[in-house]
Amino acid sequence: MSGAVKVLPLGGLGEIGMNCMVIEDDQDLFLVDCGLLFSELDHFGVDFIIPDFSYVVARKDKFRGFVLTHGHEDHIGSLSFAIKAGLQSPIWASPFTALMVRERLTESGFLDRTELKVFHPGDTIQVGSFKIKTVSVNHSIVDAAALIIETDMGKIIHTGDFRIDPTPFFGSELDLSVFKEAGDQGVLLLLSDSTNVEKCEHQPSENIIQKKFEQLMNDQKGLLIISLFSSNVGRMGQIFDLARKMGKKIALCGRSVEQNVRLAFESQYFKGSESLLIPTDSIENYDRKNTIVISSGCQGEFGAALNRIAYGDHKSIKLKPEDLVVLSSKFIPGNEKPISRMVNQLFKSGAQVLYESVQEIHVSGHATRPELKKMIEAVRPKFFIPVHGEYRHLVFHAALAKECGMKDTQVRLSTNGDLLEFTKDKMRFVEHFQEERIFVEGRDGGDISKLILKDRRLMGETGIVFALLVRDQENRKVLSEPEIISKGLVHESLEGFLIEEAKVRVKEVIRQYESSLQDGDYSFDLQEQVRVELRRFFKTNIGKKPVVLPIVMEL
Amino acid sequence: MSGAVKVLPLGGLGEIGMNCMVIEDDQDLFLVDCGLLFSELDHFGVDFIIPDFSYVVARKDKFRGFVLTHGHEDHIGSLSFAIKAGLQSPIWASPFTALMVRERLTESGFLDRTELKVFHPGDTIQVGSFKIKTVSVNHSIVDAAALIIETDMGKIIHTGDFRIDPTPFFGSELDLSVFKEAGDQGVLLLLSDSTNVEKCEHQPSENIIQKKFEQLMNDQKGLLIISLFSSNVGRMGQIFDLARKMGKKIALCGRSVEQNVRLAFESQYFKGSESLLIPTDSIENYDRKNTIVISSGCQGEFGAALNRIAYGDHKSIKLKPEDLVVLSSKFIPGNEKPISRMVNQLFKSGAQVLYESVQEIHVSGHATRPELKKMIEAVRPKFFIPVHGEYRHLVFHAALAKECGMKDTQVRLSTNGDLLEFTKDKMRFVEHFQEERIFVEGRDGGDISKLILKDRRLMGETGIVFALLVRDQENRKVLSEPEIISKGLVHESLEGFLIEEAKVRVKEVIRQYESSLQDGDYSFDLQEQVRVELRRFFKTNIGKKPVVLPIVMEL
Repeated sequence: MSGAVKVLPLGGLGEIGMNCMVIEDDQDLFLVDCGLLFSELDHFGVDFIIPDFSYVVARKDKFRGFVLTHGHEDHIGSLSFAIKAGLQSPIWASPFTALMVRERLTESGFLDRTELKVFHPGDTIQVGSFKIKTVSVNHSIVDAAALIIETDMGKIIHTGDFRIDPTPFFGSELDLSVFKEAGDQGVLLLLSDSTNVEKCEHQPSENIIQKKFEQLMNDQKGLLIISLFSSNVGRMGQIFDLARKMGKKIALCGRSVEQNVRLAFESQYFKGSESLLIPTDSIENYDRKNTIVISSGCQGEFGAALNRIAYGDHKSIKLKPEDLVVLSSKFIPGNEKPISRMVNQLFKSGAQVLYESVQEIHVSGHATRPELKKMIEAVRPKFFIPVHGEYRHLVFHAALAKECGMKDTQVRLSTNGDLLEFTKDKMRFVEHFQEERIFVEGRDGGDISKLILKDRRLMGETGIVFALLVRDQENRKVLSEPEIISKGLVHESLEGFLIEEAKVRVKEVIRQYESSLQDGDYSFDLQEQVRVELRRFFKTNIGKKPVVLPIVMEL
Repeated sequence: MSGAVKVLPLGGLGEIGMNCMVIEDDQDLFLVDCGLLFSELDHFGVDFIIPDFSYVVARKDKFRGFVLTHGHEDHIGSLSFAIKAGLQSPIWASPFTALMVRERLTESGFLDRTELKVFHPGDTIQVGSFKIKTVSVNHSIVDAAALIIETDMGKIIHTGDFRIDPTPFFGSELDLSVFKEAGDQGVLLLLSDSTNVEKCEHQPSENIIQKKFEQLMNDQKGLLIISLFSSNVGRMGQIFDLARKMGKKIALCGRSVEQNVRLAFESQYFKGSESLLIPTDSIENYDRKNTIVISSGCQGEFGAALNRIAYGDHKSIKLKPEDLVVLSSKFIPGNEKPISRMVNQLFKSGAQVLYESVQEIHVSGHATRPELKKMIEAVRPKFFIPVHGEYRHLVFHAALAKECGMKDTQVRLSTNGDLLEFTKDKMRFVEHFQEERIFVEGRDGGDISKLILKDRRLMGETGIVFALLVRDQENRKVLSEPEIISKGLVHESLEGFLIEEAKVRVKEVIRQYESSLQDGDYSFDLQEQVRVELRRFFKTNIGKKPVVLPIVMEL
């Protein structure tokens, strides 16, 4: 007996991204996924947000590895950070997921520090005391899997990210019967993807995209540039398929697209399509109206291929009026502005542009309410915890479960850091770990502490003022005129006057200081007084308190 | 004869916001609207972006004033800045618009510097040599007007922001016959609102909101908190109307809501509803299920009423489980993240929340394609320029005009800064003024130069390093150990080591400097060499170049 089963989400509950969940019994512990979150604070140098692995690190001896549901960054992106933190035992992944992990870990130099174990969705794997049946699911990346985890307390089903697509381009429709069967045997806990719970309507199959693309290729008058999530191998597969049928050539644009196409070939997905590829830098030698460019940068990322194309900075691809750019992707919340800027720029360059809000050229990889309902009804779990979504999504998904007949006591609205313990018929809240998230700078960059972030925010918003004094070590007299320098404070035209005024104030503080010295009072904190006086001065003169950094050098 | 007519957009073409357009002939010049743009760079202290008025200021002698189409910030928000720039002649505005302008100018202290002239939509006003017929239009604010401007070269119609609503709550449906009539007489130029051109479907009338609100008030179990754009007097009017009929009380939350309700009373819109209002701080004394709160902050603005309510920081309003919060507004692009955060927080507080993506609780005040088509077909202008929209919106609107039968030569895709000249049958591009936009800090704050912004960006992203040296004025020897201080640079745990290392490098530079001194070489630029060396040092050690500020003090 391995005793009660503990479930602890380290990320992904209360946010879209950074998916990572601890499953644990008395003897063993493993992680379902190990993702990252792209930061909105990139202008303050924060690139990624990753989970705090300390709970797992503290239980390193019973850590049995990572089991990945699929290859998206928000499911695998934190692996190298976890390994750096000391979690190095095997990584279980489906074929394509394993290839993506291999690339990431090669880049970060951690590949040799771990063991990659490949499963084919459908396989059953043994992770410590846990027997895990992997189940193929439909998603916006190939080789995505759900997990049916056998524990001494009963089955735990983690759907990963999924949808039910009757006609996916690769693979076949998600087989609900597997989940029904588990449901018949009895399922302790269902953890299900909440991303699209706000969408009530049935979602079309991925294959409507093919019809759309076919039409676009038929009407093609110039270059057809299709930008999509570079990991969406299924959608790229449709492009390759159509190009072959219609005798068109394909050029790749952007490192991530090139990388994932390479992986798709390696994993046999694009078998026989090698001959369609042409080198991007020789694109001008080919018939434009029979050439398709697959490009990265559909989110308007600065420096990405499509952005460079839009601004005319791309070395090989210069837009012409008859060219058509297609953004075959969702506008991810938070990216609307950069995407809009890029779309506007593409129009300015004279090309035509199609995107989600004007054309049906994208289908989501996440289940909408009708599909989510099917999953709950198939599994009929004792307990249900919605995962993968902002808090409001979890709320709606929990409500949906109740619509399906589950009782309040069976449905739990959990967020990151909630440690729950399950026995055969009981779910018990143990404790909440103050959910620490770690801000990181760059792929292999260090942490950014709250303090550093605070300083950057302050300097970024109001600038900084630096006041320098030199003091005689012996008699503690001030030897110099105060030196005051500002950066990012006010318009150049005002700066000179303002700084001069500030110096006058500092001199007054020095006067007070020295008179107190003469009175034999050595308690006067010159540095602090200068800081206080300057902050007050700027508050009254420019209405805000910049960072003030006074330094008293002893000579 | 006042000669050819010039049209110069200073803002609003190629962006949503900052609407401002010059209309000019040989003798006279006036501005249609004078709006601002809310900045995305608020984390760098940029609050607003305003037009560059220098073209108008240079022609001050012929400036005849501002004609405002309605009272939204993106149409009136820059007035105080324009007045500050020296443009003080009269401001023509409809009754409610005038009240909003009065409030703004009172706040900024400029009210006495200008003359407010009120027109009622339908009136004809004389602005210099221009006779302007104002026409009432439907929009998300009351007293909105379009302008039919008589010039020697023909009529220019500026729609302002508009839609065609068969059943608005206040006023009546936009009267197309007025525009048709003008069309029959012949219109030189149509300038029309492009904001919603991407929406193809007919849009429901504002009055569907009333049905929805009525239902919500009927089902009300706790507090009903409705958050909307505080300038949407029509929608607030529906709430007051229903509350009166259903015997409910209304509490106001947020300065802007209180202000605009006060103005709505002053302008007689809410006549007879005074008794419905209850003081917000006494809300606990009233029957919760018969109390409605109208709150500001529907865009998740930090510090706004609804955000404080969501986080439990509001002094009078504490949410309870049976309360319902309704966001009766659009998620403005770029605000999705703060709004989501707020919505999630509202759910966490246990209240129910309705918002656009889950409920039909908002109707836009901008015309969609079918309405835009009607406007073009009514006016049948010689020339057409789409206004008020991002570049892509202008492109779609131009295409729509061509669908309506206009020729390429009649439709002009203009952007801010394009000066066009019109004679009776000709449109001529004169020149493009490098569109300068001015970044401002706070309502009465100063400009932020590109240089200041650059410094803030740099410090915000990578932090700053100061290096201090004291040098003897006479013998130019360095008197001190180098002092190095950093702010926002790296995690505290690394800082100490890094700074010590940096000092070693600086000492090496000092050594080189002094040896060159001994060789009688005085060309060595100590300050610059320290800067170069430190930037190189940090680049190699932390992968980025922070702002490095070396100071050599002479003693």
